[in-house]
Amino acid sequence: MRLVTVASPTGPRLAALRGEGVADLHAADPSLPTCMKELLAEGDDGLRRAAKALAAAPAFAAAPRLLAPVSNPQKVICIGLNYADHAAESGAAIPSEPIVFNKFPTTIAADGDEISLPSCSSKVDYEAELVVVIGKGGRNIAPEEAFSHIAGYTCGHDVSARDWQLEKPGGQWLMGKTFDGFAPLGPALVTRDEIPHPGDLKIALRLNGKTMQDSSTKQLIFPIEVLVAHLSQVCTLTPGDVIFTGTPPGVGMACDPPVYLKGGDKVEVEIEGLGVLCNKFCDGGAVRR
Amino acid sequence: MRLVTVASPTGPRLAALRGEGVADLHAADPSLPTCMKELLAEGDDGLRRAAKALAAAPAFAAAPRLLAPVSNPQKVICIGLNYADHAAESGAAIPSEPIVFNKFPTTIAADGDEISLPSCSSKVDYEAELVVVIGKGGRNIAPEEAFSHIAGYTCGHDVSARDWQLEKPGGQWLMGKTFDGFAPLGPALVTRDEIPHPGDLKIALRLNGKTMQDSSTKQLIFPIEVLVAHLSQVCTLTPGDVIFTGTPPGVGMACDPPVYLKGGDKVEVEIEGLGVLCNKFCDGGAVRR
Repeated sequence: MRLVTVASPTGPRLAALRGEGVADLHAADPSLPTCMKELLAEGDDGLRRAAKALAAAPAFAAAPRLLAPVSNPQKVICIGLNYADHAAESGAAIPSEPIVFNKFPTTIAADGDEISLPSCSSKVDYEAELVVVIGKGGRNIAPEEAFSHIAGYTCGHDVSARDWQLEKPGGQWLMGKTFDGFAPLGPALVTRDEIPHPGDLKIALRLNGKTMQDSSTKQLIFPIEVLVAHLSQVCTLTPGDVIFTGTPPGVGMACDPPVYLKGGDKVEVEIEGLGVLCNKFCDGGAVRR
Repeated sequence: MRLVTVASPTGPRLAALRGEGVADLHAADPSLPTCMKELLAEGDDGLRRAAKALAAAPAFAAAPRLLAPVSNPQKVICIGLNYADHAAESGAAIPSEPIVFNKFPTTIAADGDEISLPSCSSKVDYEAELVVVIGKGGRNIAPEEAFSHIAGYTCGHDVSARDWQLEKPGGQWLMGKTFDGFAPLGPALVTRDEIPHPGDLKIALRLNGKTMQDSSTKQLIFPIEVLVAHLSQVCTLTPGDVIFTGTPPGVGMACDPPVYLKGGDKVEVEIEGLGVLCNKFCDGGAVRR
């Protein structure tokens, strides 16, 4: 299934992509939760209910606007330097264990959203990432149990203001990663059953049509099950939490000369089996410094 | 007002401290939101409604269990090295702008909760902090408007696993700060009108009765209004967001020899006008490494 969240007059609402259209799951089963996180909290039972509804669901007459598949995750967890080649291009050593940082939920944006470039940064960079969506929550999850806690996958764009990430006192990446809109996600949450080999997916990023990143999730230093185990020994993972698993080589700051995003740029993140996440960027309003 | 969230059979519920008891605001005004974040989203109107209810509210017959005043904030924002003396004891330079990191919402704990010491850390440290609670949300908030976005203040304890914070690749503090339960908060949200001078409050921390930190919020390098302005140029602040404003000198890792928390320890954070936040620590279960 390709689960999505769509805008509706009553707020965000669960739905599913089907062919070129969007299926109205609630028309078939009004008892389904409207919130993706609530569906995911039901675990495999919830996904089975959604699948049953999908089989009988009519298409929306007019295609609704897509929101991010999880529009309000509790946690937006990110892994740094998790592709060997990207660590090399960043001049960083291969980490001995996962480097973890995060973004605030206010960074979440949807496929098709226009993202504002903050006027207080001149080094906004792109990063294509495979995103894991947590289904059943848990703590101290063993690697061999990790996939039973994963609802599915989606495309993510870890937009990064390099000046705020790397040139400020204290060395913390949070601020450079957490401008509003800096985590486009989608278009759909593709359920785990449709992606049997998440560690073997082509991943690419195109900037105005030109391929800038072109790799495979085979290159992940720490695979998905290790990330879930590592994170969950520290914090309880909850339904709808998203994990950005790191970006392959080709980011703008590693180009010669560096390439940073400017108003009018169009960025597409494409991951095998997960579709294309497309966002345009625009110059932000005057932001007080 | 000293607003609290209490446990009830139907979930977390807004209430208020009054004298030695807890007032049942909903018995006086059933139209009040049960969720603190929803009340804060109503801005000054919500606080006026709560005050009116408090004037007529009966006390709970049996004192309910306190939860954190905001039990589910969207953001738990923290400021590092924000007391000049603490920067010095940490061997760090006075930062030229605020150092920002965060904890996940799964760290929130209440006054009286017992906090598990993770078995995968041997260097869990204490930090007393003044916590700002956001009322009206906003972005690009000017310093002179900052206080109109603040609902009030509470005591916070920024529990910190120094080995995970400082001895891991990548230099990110998040993991060391974000073990479940590592952000005790409370006991009450004291509304802004009762704390006219948040930049002049005594702040102290006692470990098993011995004073380890004893300072004043006069020592803040970046005052509250500067923090709100700085943060909000990056991300939208939302009702119920909490900002840990930094810790004064005396943390355990700066003692000679260093002092780290162990099972049975009792930590009290006391801030002038805000009360005492008290938590005991216990040894955690076996955590997989």
